[in-house]
Amino acid sequence: MTTSIARDVDIVEVGPRDGFQGIDLFIPTEQKISFVERAAAAGLKRIEVGSFVSAAAIPQLADTASVLKSALSLSPVLPQVLVPSEKRGKEAMENGARMLVFVLSVSEPHNRNNVRRTPTESAAEYQRLIASVPEDVGIRLSLATAFDCPFAGRVDERETLAMIEHLLPCRPNVEICLCDTTGRADPDHVGTLFRAAVSAFGDSPTWSFHGHDTYGMGLANVHAAFRQGVRIFDASFGGLGGCPFAPGATGNVATEDVVWMFERMGIATGIDFGALIDLSCDAAAIPGAISGGRAREALSAKRSVCVA
Amino acid sequence: MTTSIARDVDIVEVGPRDGFQGIDLFIPTEQKISFVERAAAAGLKRIEVGSFVSAAAIPQLADTASVLKSALSLSPVLPQVLVPSEKRGKEAMENGARMLVFVLSVSEPHNRNNVRRTPTESAAEYQRLIASVPEDVGIRLSLATAFDCPFAGRVDERETLAMIEHLLPCRPNVEICLCDTTGRADPDHVGTLFRAAVSAFGDSPTWSFHGHDTYGMGLANVHAAFRQGVRIFDASFGGLGGCPFAPGATGNVATEDVVWMFERMGIATGIDFGALIDLSCDAAAIPGAISGGRAREALSAKRSVCVA
Repeated sequence: MTTSIARDVDIVEVGPRDGFQGIDLFIPTEQKISFVERAAAAGLKRIEVGSFVSAAAIPQLADTASVLKSALSLSPVLPQVLVPSEKRGKEAMENGARMLVFVLSVSEPHNRNNVRRTPTESAAEYQRLIASVPEDVGIRLSLATAFDCPFAGRVDERETLAMIEHLLPCRPNVEICLCDTTGRADPDHVGTLFRAAVSAFGDSPTWSFHGHDTYGMGLANVHAAFRQGVRIFDASFGGLGGCPFAPGATGNVATEDVVWMFERMGIATGIDFGALIDLSCDAAAIPGAISGGRAREALSAKRSVCVA
Repeated sequence: MTTSIARDVDIVEVGPRDGFQGIDLFIPTEQKISFVERAAAAGLKRIEVGSFVSAAAIPQLADTASVLKSALSLSPVLPQVLVPSEKRGKEAMENGARMLVFVLSVSEPHNRNNVRRTPTESAAEYQRLIASVPEDVGIRLSLATAFDCPFAGRVDERETLAMIEHLLPCRPNVEICLCDTTGRADPDHVGTLFRAAVSAFGDSPTWSFHGHDTYGMGLANVHAAFRQGVRIFDASFGGLGGCPFAPGATGNVATEDVVWMFERMGIATGIDFGALIDLSCDAAAIPGAISGGRAREALSAKRSVCVA
C-alpha cells in the first residue's frame, strides 16, 4: 500500500475524531469506517479514529470501539484514540489500541471546562495512565491551550514548559503535541514556543503540532513549527472541526491545505492528493459539518472547469 | 486622523481595485468612494483606488478618475492607481495621482495574456513611463508572476531578479512589489526570493509583497516576507478578488486576516480592527463579490454571540 512512499513529514488525520465530534447528526459507523479506509488509501498513515469517552458526553463517538477495530486491520496505518483517564486507557487497550492520546489543558479554566479537573489533577491522572500502559503502546501527550486559552487569553510560555518538565520523566519517549486550541496563536508565537521546548527538552520526546485555521493562520503556524524541526502535524479533511467558543468559526487546519503547502515546498507527504481532495469534498458535504480550508475549493473548482 | 498612530507595517488596501475589478455588476461611484473613505477612517493610509485602463477592458473601473479625485481629499491617505502605459500614466497624473503602479509580468505567457506584449516590450514601456514622471510622484513596479505563472508554472528566481536588475537603474528609489499572482507560492519560496532580492539590490528600492490566499497560504507567505524585512503588504477587505484562472478560488489575502495576525504578533498596523471588520463584512456582501479570509467570519460570528 502506502508504506513504500518516502515522506518527510507525517500528517495525522484527526477528522474522524476532532472533525466528527462537533457534528450533531450521528454519522453511521460504516460511513465513519469508510472515511478512515479512504484516508488510509490516500496515504495517511496515522489516523485519530475516535475517543474512549462517555457516550453521553460525546454521542457521536459512541462507536469508537467499532471504528478502531476496523482501522486496526489497515496495517501499516496506526490508528490513535483519545483517552481522558487511566480507566479509559485500559478500555482502549482492551479494544486493541496501540496509540493513546491523553489531552491535558495547560490553562486551568479550560481544563476545568473540558474535564472538570485542575491541570494538576489531570497531570496525576496522566501519571496513573502511564503506569498502566506497556512500553510498546505509544503515548501522545496533547497539551491543549499550550499557546492561548479561550477564557484566559495568551498562556505564559513558562506554564507550558513547566507542565512538560513535570510530566516528561514518567515517559521520556512520549510524543508531545502542542495544541493551538483557539487558532489565535501567531506564527512567531508557535516558532518561539517550539524553539524553547526543543531547546529545554531536546529530541527525546517527539514533537507534534495541532493547529486550527479559525483566523487564517493555520498554514502560517504549521510552517513556523516546521521551521523549528517539527515533523508531525495534525490536520482534518475538509477543515472539519468548529470551535465551540467561536460559533461560525472554522476548525482544524485542512489536511488538503497542509499537504498542498508541503508538496509545493518540495517536502514529501506520501499522500495521493487527488484521492485526498475527493475525500475532503465528501467530508465537507457531511450534513451538519462546518468545513474550512482553501485548496479543496480552489482545486475542485479548477478540476471541474478543466473537465468542462 | 490616523497619522498619529505608530505603525510597524504598512498595509495597502487593494480592494477598490483588485477586489472590485472582478465584480461584474457596476458598483456605483458613490459606493466606491464610501468604501475608500471608510478604509481611510479605519486607518489604512495607502489605498489602491482604481486603474487608468480602457473602460472597455475593465468597465467596473471606468470611474477611477472620480474615485481618485475624492480620495485625494483624504490626506494623509495616499491613493495609488494602476497604469499600464506612459500615456495612461500622464492621464493619471493629470487627474492628480501622486502614486502610480506599473504592472509587468515576469512570465512571458502571462504578460502577453494581460497586456498583449512581451515582458521586454512592457519593460520598455515602463522606462518610457519613468522618463515622464517627476521625481516627486511615487512609483511602484509590481512584478506579477514573480513566483509562479498560471500558464508556465514556477518562475525561475533568476528571471525575476534579472527583470529587477534591468529596471532598477532608471528609478533606483522605486518600490518593487513581488506578486504571488496565482497564490501558489509557498512560504519557503517567498522567503527565498525576497532574501535573494534584498541581498542583490539592498534597501534602495522599497520592497512590498502582494499575495493571494487561493490555497490557504496567504498569511504564511505574508509572514515569510515579513521575516525577510518586507514591511509593506497588499491586502483586500473581505478577501475580495478571485483569480480568473481558478474559478471558485478566493482572492487576495484578506486585510482583516493580515491585520489580525500582525496585531497578535505585537506588530502595530495602526488600524482600527472593529471598523475594518465592519467594512470587510460590507465588502463581502457586495452583490457578485467572491469573498475570502477567516478572521471576518470568526470574529463577526463571535461578536454576534457575545451580544446575544
